[in-house]
Amino acid sequence: MKASLIMIGTEITRGIIQDSHGVLLSRELTHLGVHVAEIVSLPDDGTIGPVLSALMRSSDLIIITGGLGPTTDDMTRSVIAGCAGVPLTKDAGCWDFLLGRLGDRAYGANEKQAYIPEGFTMIPNHNGTAPGFYGYGGETLLICLPGPPREMEPMLYESVLPLIRGKLDLPEAERDEYSSFITAEAKLEELYEAIDPRLDWGTRFQDYRISLYVSGGTAAERDDAIARLRDKVGECRIADGNREPLDILIDALERHHATIGCAESCSGGMASMLLTQRAGSSAFMMGSVTSYDPSVKEGILGVDHGIIREHGTVSAECAMAMADGARKAIGSDFAFSITGVAGPDKSEGKDVGTVFIGFSGKGRETEAAALKFTSWGRDSVRKRSSVAAFLLMAAFIDGRSPAGIASCWRYL
Amino acid sequence: MKASLIMIGTEITRGIIQDSHGVLLSRELTHLGVHVAEIVSLPDDGTIGPVLSALMRSSDLIIITGGLGPTTDDMTRSVIAGCAGVPLTKDAGCWDFLLGRLGDRAYGANEKQAYIPEGFTMIPNHNGTAPGFYGYGGETLLICLPGPPREMEPMLYESVLPLIRGKLDLPEAERDEYSSFITAEAKLEELYEAIDPRLDWGTRFQDYRISLYVSGGTAAERDDAIARLRDKVGECRIADGNREPLDILIDALERHHATIGCAESCSGGMASMLLTQRAGSSAFMMGSVTSYDPSVKEGILGVDHGIIREHGTVSAECAMAMADGARKAIGSDFAFSITGVAGPDKSEGKDVGTVFIGFSGKGRETEAAALKFTSWGRDSVRKRSSVAAFLLMAAFIDGRSPAGIASCWRYL
Repeated sequence: MKASLIMIGTEITRGIIQDSHGVLLSRELTHLGVHVAEIVSLPDDGTIGPVLSALMRSSDLIIITGGLGPTTDDMTRSVIAGCAGVPLTKDAGCWDFLLGRLGDRAYGANEKQAYIPEGFTMIPNHNGTAPGFYGYGGETLLICLPGPPREMEPMLYESVLPLIRGKLDLPEAERDEYSSFITAEAKLEELYEAIDPRLDWGTRFQDYRISLYVSGGTAAERDDAIARLRDKVGECRIADGNREPLDILIDALERHHATIGCAESCSGGMASMLLTQRAGSSAFMMGSVTSYDPSVKEGILGVDHGIIREHGTVSAECAMAMADGARKAIGSDFAFSITGVAGPDKSEGKDVGTVFIGFSGKGRETEAAALKFTSWGRDSVRKRSSVAAFLLMAAFIDGRSPAGIASCWRYL
Repeated sequence: MKASLIMIGTEITRGIIQDSHGVLLSRELTHLGVHVAEIVSLPDDGTIGPVLSALMRSSDLIIITGGLGPTTDDMTRSVIAGCAGVPLTKDAGCWDFLLGRLGDRAYGANEKQAYIPEGFTMIPNHNGTAPGFYGYGGETLLICLPGPPREMEPMLYESVLPLIRGKLDLPEAERDEYSSFITAEAKLEELYEAIDPRLDWGTRFQDYRISLYVSGGTAAERDDAIARLRDKVGECRIADGNREPLDILIDALERHHATIGCAESCSGGMASMLLTQRAGSSAFMMGSVTSYDPSVKEGILGVDHGIIREHGTVSAECAMAMADGARKAIGSDFAFSITGVAGPDKSEGKDVGTVFIGFSGKGRETEAAALKFTSWGRDSVRKRSSVAAFLLMAAFIDGRSPAGIASCWRYL
């Protein structure tokens, strides 16, 4: 199947906003084995007509986003009807759906949105007023979706991808979502393909995690594949559902009604910044110390000068002293510490990516996990250190040993 | 002038990377009065041929990016020569340029990059091995540029935009670059258009700043316009050149050979994270305390309990005590503090966006600046607070009064 994508929006061709649908649609289509031959952005001025006609000659599938709003300059729906050689007609189901969503707020301009090309089928939009629709123009399957991402994206996953799977005779797959942490996207792909290439795997890179899904096969096959993936990377690295590492730590803190603090060296405040990112974080986050200079490690955190002299600041000993010192100075139930070499240069004779994370808790033995991250640059070492600290701290709060868990981690 | 843009890259049509050239090129062309009729992304498989032929019939200008690398699958240059009806020919100047850049490292595959369509002109690439080129195919001006942004973008500004200005008979404009801080992009546009709409203004939103340029007119007219813009928003808000707020603070610290620390409440570690972002930041950054819980403000920073009881934690008094406490606990020459309401809810009866920044320095009177940011969300209040702290701290280090400067700031 050969596909083309058309994104309509004068704001795109004037350089005011960046199209984000092209990359999402191409990734999902590529994943289904569909070849994306062309991605076109056009202004909302009716020029879609000739472009669509030309693309219909070479494409089995065309997805069009945007140009379906209630304002009069949106002429996409009539151009598409024209290309399909049918009139626009008021779709009763579509109008009922709009009335159901808008009630008294439905007015004349919305009525226009209930007009779709004759013979086409409505795609419901649960997050906006512009329904989508699909149908055939000649041999080409035309799928039209509204432009706003929060409307388009759910419609893509709920309606469009299942529709295309059906057309391709791909079985309607059950899909399980996971979040993967720290492993590079390319390595993750290599791993899951070696485990079970018959399943459908997909990843989506996000700031502090990679969203992962697996579909196809039976539930038992999918569970087994994920269990094997977990074995390969190590515990706590793949979570059920689409979740940020911070969520996992917050859940553990809430389960134990506990407060937290931290001490940071190489991450320089990033963990603290993340711990205070959400509204309401004062319920569990008490504070942190960025002890960048060794004198601050000694002064505020009370790290013994002998530890620094003997083991250096990038050491398990220093990480444990920092975590204990942070918990004491801040007065939290738990505290972690991060000390390491973010790069670009070696420090204290230790390679870039060497990181120690300390864990301290009331009535618990203090531990340190030793990690060695591949060096993809300073920012990446800082991010992965913060993520590792959250995941391992959650395990520590649950009574487990972060040092033991981290020692089995691979592909950092 | 009617333009089309073609971005070549199989990684784009497979959804692996997002094209970023489309939005940049369209913005710059729109700005010159060029109408961008179509933006097309294509795989690197030679399908550019028919697309380019079709677009040449309707476009006065076509800019093509990507597909110029040394690997054999890059066939863009021969397709373009074919569409222009000329052979590819080894350009002596181009080869000399490549030899000059690569020296001994130039090998066979690079030689291919010295072949451009006959009669076309090379566009030098100072950041990579693929030179660009331009020339006419029929009536259409064809401009080809390499795909990597760090190669393409300088070529756009140094060579391509001046070339298009010339074709449009727009005078070769001198261009001054500035960085604008904290003001919203839309408000900034409103302001500069009210000042002098005859000049060419442009903005580009970046993470902690807005890059601003002004071109056209005489140097005196541009200087005058920027001076009036500075008057409107207030001192320290518009810097010469394309610079991050962190650079401005680092410069002040280096000028005075001074070290810094900070205490953060609502920004939660963001300022500290930024202060440690660059390699070598340990030269000036000593540490910070995120005193999220009031007990940490009292405990580590030594803020008097009476100050919190009487004025609350979101107050000038608390900000000053935090800054003094941070400087003492951390042992730095200077320290600032940030305390405020990031939202989404009011706190201590104070509105979201209310922020106090304290400034403390050896032998200097401690001050606090009171700011009231428009609430665009929690993350934005935290970011603008950090940026304001850097700008005002730089002024404080230079011996000026941040409280006085901030009191004249508008459009926050």
